[in-house]
Amino acid sequence: MNNMSQLKIVFLAALKSRITQSEPTSLYDPVHYILDLGGKRLRPLLTLMSAQMYGSTFDKAMDAAIAVEVFHNFTLLHDDIMDDADLRRGEETVHVKWDVNTGILSGDAMLIIAYQLFNSYDAQTFYELNQVFSKTALEVCEGQQYDVDFETRDDVTIPEYLHMIKLKTSVLVGCALKMGAIIAGVDEKEQQLIYDYGVLLGLAFQLMDDYLDAFGDPETFGKEVGGDIRENKKTYLYLKSIEDEGCATELKEWFAMDYKEMNEEQIEMKKETVKVFFEESGGAAATLEAIKSYTDKALRIIKQLSISDDSKKQLTDFSLDLMSRIS
Amino acid sequence: MNNMSQLKIVFLAALKSRITQSEPTSLYDPVHYILDLGGKRLRPLLTLMSAQMYGSTFDKAMDAAIAVEVFHNFTLLHDDIMDDADLRRGEETVHVKWDVNTGILSGDAMLIIAYQLFNSYDAQTFYELNQVFSKTALEVCEGQQYDVDFETRDDVTIPEYLHMIKLKTSVLVGCALKMGAIIAGVDEKEQQLIYDYGVLLGLAFQLMDDYLDAFGDPETFGKEVGGDIRENKKTYLYLKSIEDEGCATELKEWFAMDYKEMNEEQIEMKKETVKVFFEESGGAAATLEAIKSYTDKALRIIKQLSISDDSKKQLTDFSLDLMSRIS
Repeated sequence: MNNMSQLKIVFLAALKSRITQSEPTSLYDPVHYILDLGGKRLRPLLTLMSAQMYGSTFDKAMDAAIAVEVFHNFTLLHDDIMDDADLRRGEETVHVKWDVNTGILSGDAMLIIAYQLFNSYDAQTFYELNQVFSKTALEVCEGQQYDVDFETRDDVTIPEYLHMIKLKTSVLVGCALKMGAIIAGVDEKEQQLIYDYGVLLGLAFQLMDDYLDAFGDPETFGKEVGGDIRENKKTYLYLKSIEDEGCATELKEWFAMDYKEMNEEQIEMKKETVKVFFEESGGAAATLEAIKSYTDKALRIIKQLSISDDSKKQLTDFSLDLMSRIS
Repeated sequence: MNNMSQLKIVFLAALKSRITQSEPTSLYDPVHYILDLGGKRLRPLLTLMSAQMYGSTFDKAMDAAIAVEVFHNFTLLHDDIMDDADLRRGEETVHVKWDVNTGILSGDAMLIIAYQLFNSYDAQTFYELNQVFSKTALEVCEGQQYDVDFETRDDVTIPEYLHMIKLKTSVLVGCALKMGAIIAGVDEKEQQLIYDYGVLLGLAFQLMDDYLDAFGDPETFGKEVGGDIRENKKTYLYLKSIEDEGCATELKEWFAMDYKEMNEEQIEMKKETVKVFFEESGGAAATLEAIKSYTDKALRIIKQLSISDDSKKQLTDFSLDLMSRIS
């Protein structure tokens, strides 16, 4: 069993033992429910790993790691309400299992609980953790809002799209790693480096998600393949594809269709056709190129980090492993 | 012009100059909108006053005062969604003027901004402010959840009701005062005293609101007189009144009627009849008694505080002024 698998077991036990609020049950049952739904636990594991690499222990970073995971699940809870999503990891979402009001209030409580988890750190560490956490949390809200705004805009540019996914997804990966570094007491320059690595990794990860939505293996992708196409999501893959004038008109026509007015056969036809355009336009290749570019940038930062060669190898393997879903 | 009026002017100017987030406008416009709606600004003024009384300055307490007000407005924003309220201070609520999703996300952003406002304090003060703030914020969520739970329960006891309003309303008043004391650097025992004063004042204030809902002057109450009766709210006034066996049966019958199935004439009849029962049962007198009891306890704490006699007088006048709405 490798270090990450071990850390995950220890993390899950700690998550259970640290989040113990219970009354009123109508407020806290949904909190325990969403935290128990599973998931990769990528962000908290990065906090633990970062602290270890910088000479601290996973134990000291545990509360910050739990805070990151609780915060991440708070965003999922409120996002599911906003997206009117019925399912999360194959189970009913909180606002479906309970109701929207419960979802709002339990989410609010989770955001506060995330902050409270930092209480176990000394005042100076507490201060530094809070700085990056609040800044990141607000950016995630901004990213979510841009995502909502983009749904009703036809003129979203690629820089705007990249800025949106950076805020919505990537900065929290950077934050998770930086918190481990703060707990280990490394200097600000090093904190910034590991943060930058995380943001680049997060960007590559999100672009890969965009790519796999169309071209992933239904057996392993974990979500509906083509879900973005069904819902006309203007992802990087789409935005790059409509740069090709030969494909733009038809693609835009397909992306003007409302899936609620189509039957499943028509939607399957749409998915297959759009995928052909994604390939023919060069959009698919450009997306793979961008993923490679961000991954390479992330790997170059690893080389500059003040950590042991073993740690560099672990982080590199981890990065490549994350990206291996593509091949 | 007295000290409180002066502080309010300075506070409103600071609120405007400190909350400057603007992009994405769809996220931050609602934040500015709700903060501009007005209100007594009671809680932040208490923070400023507390800091002054303990020998600090209003200036040093300003960011904490703004945090309290931003937090309070975050709770109003999300509560209005949960209560399906169309109006707030005579203006459209955020989720009506924009939509529910905007209301959720802008509220989330406000909670984070409230935390960020503490960033200007040194690490130790920052730590102490955060402790009381997070604890209070979570209690306010719990109080709101109990309030929701109580709507569908017929067996709410008076201790349960008092616990609910303490969490939902009073602890934030205590927190506002304690934060001023923390900033002024007084010891924990003194912090606890001023906190306790605030909680008692908050309880008296909320019970007075329950009383005035039935017996207030329509010209000055600011809300619909009898609104709680219309909506069958099981307030202290109601719970005390149904302790009288002679009135309980009829009161419970009136409180089983849905206002959506009544015309305005019937509702007026209900209000007038219920008010008679509130008086006859002794519930109205018991509520006034409880208000007086909590106010007296609060005033007794003022005497124990380590502040100047002038400050004691100011705080006493302020407490009595708040309660003067009754007579």
